[in-house]
Amino acid sequence: MNVFVIGVGLIGGSMAKDIKKENPEAIVYGIDINDNHLDEALSIGVIDKKAVYKDLSIADIVIVSVPVDIMVSELPKVLDVVNDEAVVLDAGSTKALICNTVANHPKRRNFLACHPIAGTEFSGPAAAINDLYKGKTNIICEVEKTAFKLQEKALAIFQQLGMRIRYMNPEAHDKHIAYVSHLSHISSFMLGKTVIEKEKNERDIFDMAGSGFESTVRLAKSSPAMWTPIFKQNKDNVIETLEEYIHNLEAFKTMIIEDDYDGIYKEMNSTNRIKEILNGIPLNKK
Amino acid sequence: MNVFVIGVGLIGGSMAKDIKKENPEAIVYGIDINDNHLDEALSIGVIDKKAVYKDLSIADIVIVSVPVDIMVSELPKVLDVVNDEAVVLDAGSTKALICNTVANHPKRRNFLACHPIAGTEFSGPAAAINDLYKGKTNIICEVEKTAFKLQEKALAIFQQLGMRIRYMNPEAHDKHIAYVSHLSHISSFMLGKTVIEKEKNERDIFDMAGSGFESTVRLAKSSPAMWTPIFKQNKDNVIETLEEYIHNLEAFKTMIIEDDYDGIYKEMNSTNRIKEILNGIPLNKK
Repeated sequence: MNVFVIGVGLIGGSMAKDIKKENPEAIVYGIDINDNHLDEALSIGVIDKKAVYKDLSIADIVIVSVPVDIMVSELPKVLDVVNDEAVVLDAGSTKALICNTVANHPKRRNFLACHPIAGTEFSGPAAAINDLYKGKTNIICEVEKTAFKLQEKALAIFQQLGMRIRYMNPEAHDKHIAYVSHLSHISSFMLGKTVIEKEKNERDIFDMAGSGFESTVRLAKSSPAMWTPIFKQNKDNVIETLEEYIHNLEAFKTMIIEDDYDGIYKEMNSTNRIKEILNGIPLNKK
Repeated sequence: MNVFVIGVGLIGGSMAKDIKKENPEAIVYGIDINDNHLDEALSIGVIDKKAVYKDLSIADIVIVSVPVDIMVSELPKVLDVVNDEAVVLDAGSTKALICNTVANHPKRRNFLACHPIAGTEFSGPAAAINDLYKGKTNIICEVEKTAFKLQEKALAIFQQLGMRIRYMNPEAHDKHIAYVSHLSHISSFMLGKTVIEKEKNERDIFDMAGSGFESTVRLAKSSPAMWTPIFKQNKDNVIETLEEYIHNLEAFKTMIIEDDYDGIYKEMNSTNRIKEILNGIPLNKK
């Protein structure tokens, strides 16, 4: 089995590691615009061989794990080269534009639109780890547009990786993911910015930070190259979530200004329901 | 050594556990308005005996770990009862009002104003754990107002628990902690609220949440009874942080609306500095 990973970082690299573990005969080829990443991935065994686009003709599986702006420019070129038996997966955090981009491609049936809900705040080949996808959700969009045999091939791999599958249309995906993922990143980045700005004049402030701050601001370590095009492609949904979030913050501020501490208590108490909700989320237990 | 814990939950209970471990001869007495908590703490060994206020006359160390509104009403009563050799510590997340409340108490020199920057999102006696304070910062305010011998007694305990000590005045504490702790809690609660509100009509939304969302919303599990009086006592500072946070979110939203993706990239890139900052924070590595 020839597995190609385009964009050898946390997402593609982790998937390659698990596939190799489950299928020792598989040969993992890496393609990356960054030659240093490719050398690093080779030296630490995330890939077996370096490759280029024309080699894609021998691919059985292609995992395209690049920022979503590069995805829309590269995915058609990947489909141009692969053979009829190859399945091409993406792992983008947006789905509508990506699906639209390849909607009329002659090899559309070779493509399976995926969003594995997994990751860490780290990036690059060295961030790739085994079992990243175990127990995690993989959202598949427009499954009916992928050739049945190729769906099967991909699903067998996802089963090996221990993923739960959910089917969704691209528009619903983009709308929902804005709430549970994209907004979290913005809230975390802006929290980090607010505190860093304050710190300019108050050098000791971070000495006072604890694990609560660390948890809330963790996503502000994420890659700007990955996240800028996500916000661009999901602009309307992201703006909607931001408006609702800001509205809720303003309302909370007003309650504090007006000394409405009963209201504040009730607000937090009803949001405590997040405990039960989180208990239902399949997460990597560390 | 007679150690009294008033408010036998995560904070006081964890401190008692470590003190007992380091000083097996110590007897830990628990006082709590909630008799169920007291029975639970006794049955799981967080305390050795149940006690009431008049027993405080035999105390060597008193740890007052109750919500900050109860703190300001109870602390003077505790000081009324203790003997001259007892040191009374608090663990409140605000410091100015607490210090003001006891400023003129005849036993002011028996009190040491503390804020150990440690915790989890859980509460109650069962949440008490060993080593919660190891490597964590303990902020001490107005140290000069505490009797020298009692400072020494308390510092010896903090050293046993592995804490780093920082001295600060109450006003500076309350201003800085609003940024690195109180704001994080509000941002997390409002993120939880925003997504829960959306979920009312979209049942499947949480199936799409991953570890990033979980991390960012973790603090929304926190106790409203503990946090409402903190926001009340630190009202002005909290409002200031909220205004800066909302301003930054609005600016980010405007950049998205205006398609200023260079600006968004730069904003996230400069906030990535949080990585180095977090590396310098003493956290429980889990």
